[in-house]
Amino acid sequence: MSVFGCIEAGGTKFVCGVGTGPDDLQVETFPTSSPDSTLAGVIQFFREQAGSELSAVGIGSFGPVDLRPESPTFGYITSTPKPGWQQYDLAGQIARALGVPVGFDTDVNAAAAGEARWGAGRGIPNFVYLTVGTGIGGGAIVNGEVIHGLVHPEMGHIRIPHDPAADPYPGRCPFHHDCLEGLASGPAMEARWGKPAQELPDDHPGWKLEARYLALGLATWVCTLSPERVVLGGGVMQHLKVFPMVRRELVDLLNGYIRAKAILEDIDDYVVPPQLGKRAGVLGAMVLAEHVFRNPAVAVAAPLAGDDTWR
Amino acid sequence: MSVFGCIEAGGTKFVCGVGTGPDDLQVETFPTSSPDSTLAGVIQFFREQAGSELSAVGIGSFGPVDLRPESPTFGYITSTPKPGWQQYDLAGQIARALGVPVGFDTDVNAAAAGEARWGAGRGIPNFVYLTVGTGIGGGAIVNGEVIHGLVHPEMGHIRIPHDPAADPYPGRCPFHHDCLEGLASGPAMEARWGKPAQELPDDHPGWKLEARYLALGLATWVCTLSPERVVLGGGVMQHLKVFPMVRRELVDLLNGYIRAKAILEDIDDYVVPPQLGKRAGVLGAMVLAEHVFRNPAVAVAAPLAGDDTWR
Repeated sequence: MSVFGCIEAGGTKFVCGVGTGPDDLQVETFPTSSPDSTLAGVIQFFREQAGSELSAVGIGSFGPVDLRPESPTFGYITSTPKPGWQQYDLAGQIARALGVPVGFDTDVNAAAAGEARWGAGRGIPNFVYLTVGTGIGGGAIVNGEVIHGLVHPEMGHIRIPHDPAADPYPGRCPFHHDCLEGLASGPAMEARWGKPAQELPDDHPGWKLEARYLALGLATWVCTLSPERVVLGGGVMQHLKVFPMVRRELVDLLNGYIRAKAILEDIDDYVVPPQLGKRAGVLGAMVLAEHVFRNPAVAVAAPLAGDDTWR
Repeated sequence: MSVFGCIEAGGTKFVCGVGTGPDDLQVETFPTSSPDSTLAGVIQFFREQAGSELSAVGIGSFGPVDLRPESPTFGYITSTPKPGWQQYDLAGQIARALGVPVGFDTDVNAAAAGEARWGAGRGIPNFVYLTVGTGIGGGAIVNGEVIHGLVHPEMGHIRIPHDPAADPYPGRCPFHHDCLEGLASGPAMEARWGKPAQELPDDHPGWKLEARYLALGLATWVCTLSPERVVLGGGVMQHLKVFPMVRRELVDLLNGYIRAKAILEDIDDYVVPPQLGKRAGVLGAMVLAEHVFRNPAVAVAAPLAGDDTWR
């Protein structure tokens, strides 16, 4: 059994795990402060928990990140507004400090991979994982593989119909104003209604509007990716009563055009919550670690001889 | 060298080809009348042109079609409004008549596969092929493979922002009214402006509106699929002056968020016309024929013993 290290690198915390699989995963969390301070804790954790048994590390990171293996900044966090983390060689630092191959992807692609392996996407070669929280992000699995493409998907930034007469809130995306994330993220709900989403009562009209916007996104992805299942996670989706509303709106929007039993008859099993809950990200990072362990060619650059930054 | 049969099965004509590759392809066209009459011509063509040398046939078909190998109606055209063709076992009839394995996909997936193999998608593992004509359809290649998923993509039916004050035309999709196809297909342009798209002068405002709608679709697919290139074909796109307008609108909509050189600097090489022109469909069918020849497991049901419908 190989011992893997897993990092869910988020904007507020790094969730780290060590284990051979989901059942023996030891998890510890470190606040995201400066890169030096955060990584010192993370690296010490891996050294203490795994030591020389560590086979590989996987990182699902907040972004934007550089995922192009041929790029000189492969494995970096790039143009983030987060102070200290711009153009930061996250995967390279970990690889050099721990001397193991490192697999690297976006946080949401990692979570999608985790749900694909152990959660709501098990055995389903085509599915979409969406997280609705501080932002909206998506990871898509097509023919059993995560989509990367030119950069990586930015599914939250699709444009959707927005009727300013019915919803005068202008959206809060600094790039696109009323894209899906701009209209339907947690902060957008809070700004529109004057209180956090989790404080809105079940019958608040904000939930119906939220369900409609999310269903507009899902209808787009159903028509584009033809997923066999859609998993909706993130803080906003912890309000489980929004699930039946999203399902109804999705069926309404598709209007019988996609003639699939999964949608026409089994919608409750088609749009579902994650099964790994808060562990989706860190278990997804374990999938990345396993993958790089079996395919060292996908690792970020090998440790440099003589680099002792973290020794 | 294997001899392949190729069928681009369209709602108005069947384009058929026989050859070992693009260079020796012999093409003949048959009007889409009744299934019996159309198939009689098609089958006679293959018998005369290839006879016993025929190795396999590929079909890219108008739809909706059933692409699920486990389905009893795999290889059928299903709920089309076209008289005589509902629930028609197109792939099965061809397989039984010619006694060879038959590969089957949507017309637009076939065209995408053709462009991927010999056209504008050569060497590009992630790209989108869109056709804008009587309808709007898309085929997407992800990690080198065509997306099928639950059914198959119906990319033309995504919802996009539509401002009825600026464009009062309500859209013509019988299922979704103002989805992308409902607003931006050739017939939608003709209904909105009172004349066919090809008769609109270059400076007609209809082209700017068309470019905006298509760019809204492309922005959605860039954010969802992260393609390395987008190919726009179909009758409407034969008005090549719309290409620079679509590119400008796409860059405007993405607004610098997707930080990729292909979009920020090389947009002229990112959104491009097809390279196979009108042969994309029939050459795509050849890719399907090759594929089924190498992987007989993906063929529609083998010929039934004693079936002599077409003998």
